Amino acid sequence: MALRTRLTDAFGLRHPIVLAPMDPASGGALAAAVSAAGGLGLIGGGYGDHATLDREFARAGNQRVGCGFITWSMARDPSLLDAALARSPAALMLSFADPAPFADRIHAAGVPLICQVHTLAQARRALEVGAAVVVAQGTEAGGHGLTARGTVAFVPAAADLIARERPETLLLAAGGIADGRGLAAALALGADGVLMGTRFWATREALIHPAAKQRVLAATGDDTVRTQVYDIARQRAWPAAYTGRLLRNAFIETWHGREDALRAASAERRRDVEDADAAGDYDVANVTVGEAVGLIDDLPGAGDLVLRIAGEAEAAIRRISGMAAAAP
Amino acid sequence: MALRTRLTDAFGLRHPIVLAPMDPASGGALAAAVSAAGGLGLIGGGYGDHATLDREFARAGNQRVGCGFITWSMARDPSLLDAALARSPAALMLSFADPAPFADRIHAAGVPLICQVHTLAQARRALEVGAAVVVAQGTEAGGHGLTARGTVAFVPAAADLIARERPETLLLAAGGIADGRGLAAALALGADGVLMGTRFWATREALIHPAAKQRVLAATGDDTVRTQVYDIARQRAWPAAYTGRLLRNAFIETWHGREDALRAASAERRRDVEDADAAGDYDVANVTVGEAVGLIDDLPGAGDLVLRIAGEAEAAIRRISGMAAAAP
Repeated sequence: MALRTRLTDAFGLRHPIVLAPMDPASGGALAAAVSAAGGLGLIGGGYGDHATLDREFARAGNQRVGCGFITWSMARDPSLLDAALARSPAALMLSFADPAPFADRIHAAGVPLICQVHTLAQARRALEVGAAVVVAQGTEAGGHGLTARGTVAFVPAAADLIARERPETLLLAAGGIADGRGLAAALALGADGVLMGTRFWATREALIHPAAKQRVLAATGDDTVRTQVYDIARQRAWPAAYTGRLLRNAFIETWHGREDALRAASAERRRDVEDADAAGDYDVANVTVGEAVGLIDDLPGAGDLVLRIAGEAEAAIRRISGMAAAAP
Repeated sequence: MALRTRLTDAFGLRHPIVLAPMDPASGGALAAAVSAAGGLGLIGGGYGDHATLDREFARAGNQRVGCGFITWSMARDPSLLDAALARSPAALMLSFADPAPFADRIHAAGVPLICQVHTLAQARRALEVGAAVVVAQGTEAGGHGLTARGTVAFVPAAADLIARERPETLLLAAGGIADGRGLAAALALGADGVLMGTRFWATREALIHPAAKQRVLAATGDDTVRTQVYDIARQRAWPAAYTGRLLRNAFIETWHGREDALRAASAERRRDVEDADAAGDYDVANVTVGEAVGLIDDLPGAGDLVLRIAGEAEAAIRRISGMAAAAP
């Protein structure tokens, strides 16, 4: 059972499923498990530090994995990009800032550049800088993003743009996709595959506290919200338009809408949040997942999950093919 | 060419495509054209007035059409509901408030109740009141809605809820769907069909000024925004959480974020907006469309459009079936 798309051909995959490079969830063990199962695992390079990068690439062992960065943060120390490229990653993904300053270096290394985009204007920019893969991420996604676009209308618009302007570019759908129904839908919308975060966040291998994973099992997709409160508390210099989608908790109920007061007390609140994260207290620390949380009710191994999603997608395709065959 | 689903069986349709009851776009001529082509047309009862309801039902002629209301507005004069039910509509759709006070009357008339919902909690309520059809509408949609949920994760979550709690209920996907790729995706996600607004707004029959329709042809999905400014200017008493998704224009650029100042001047601004609407000035009047606007580049007749979308959906299903067949 498998699905063959332009993505599986280009990257030598068995399934058109890519792990989002979540920081800190997507460590080397998770990325390696996704790749070993026939998908493509991306290590979460995140804000970027050499020690984490070295450790997680080492944990991926011999599996062919890629890596992703928060571009504006990595830009403060571009030697991080050099270190990642020196590993000959399967792909290098950039998100949340103009990729232009780094594109040539990635092309020169012969590494496929993946650009995550949140608007059609950003997608156009990704084509200009020669991205091999564009990830069209809807606002449903967990973690940082924009409210600008929802996945279901954004993906076909990005597909149309690519077809017009640079048809060799591959397209991944991201945001709100957590099972084979979503994968089948993404392919129908014109994507060559999917990038999934939240679903892989809730796996055995994800570098997330067990207490946070348990919260996800009980939540529905109604329970998330986009907010800046944790970026303020953690003193992260995110561009103003970007918010993080998170599971609602007591900390968000307290501070969302009171951002100025939070900013004034951010030194103390940063300690609270970091202590709570270490202690597994997710009334205070953040649970960074998207609307797909409502489709998750177990914590499987990531490899089994890849196979399950591929099987579900084929079942969904068979089901809707039957709708066409059954018509008079 | 056709698709057979539980929706087409239940309503005797040839295509699982339902016209959203947009006020004022969805008049009797548009609803009738959709029904004549094998979909289901719903007249936009909107805020509700008897003269409009009478006129548009008359314009639908002998075609079997339904009707939809803005529930909290219709509630101020429930004789509107009686008038609609007296027409033996194909369905009666309620949106934007608790349907419970009106459900029994609709059931007693033997008319299928369609409930539009924007959260899983609202979906659960729709099942409690015995809705025949639940419309899971994502935030991508044009016009009024919530920011709570995006279509791609909301529809499968609603499908799972229905399967668990009341499996005979039908499910429509809405928000961001404007072509056959979106229809195929909706079916893959677990819907029995789609409810489309924006795409039918941009048809010959829609009761919209030609100048407004022209704006849609030039826009991308990046160009919409959720805002309350027109509800304030038009002095409509919408519940606080609901915003309208509209095409950005000079009026929105001026007033979005300055709602208190707008409220103070709403009598004058209401005249401005109403005059502009009559004159076809859409720098001032509102163009009420969703993110699917980026997938629209023509103004066809609605009947041709229904057939086109059905054909595109079948092509999308064949295309992704080929991805499964091509795998090694």
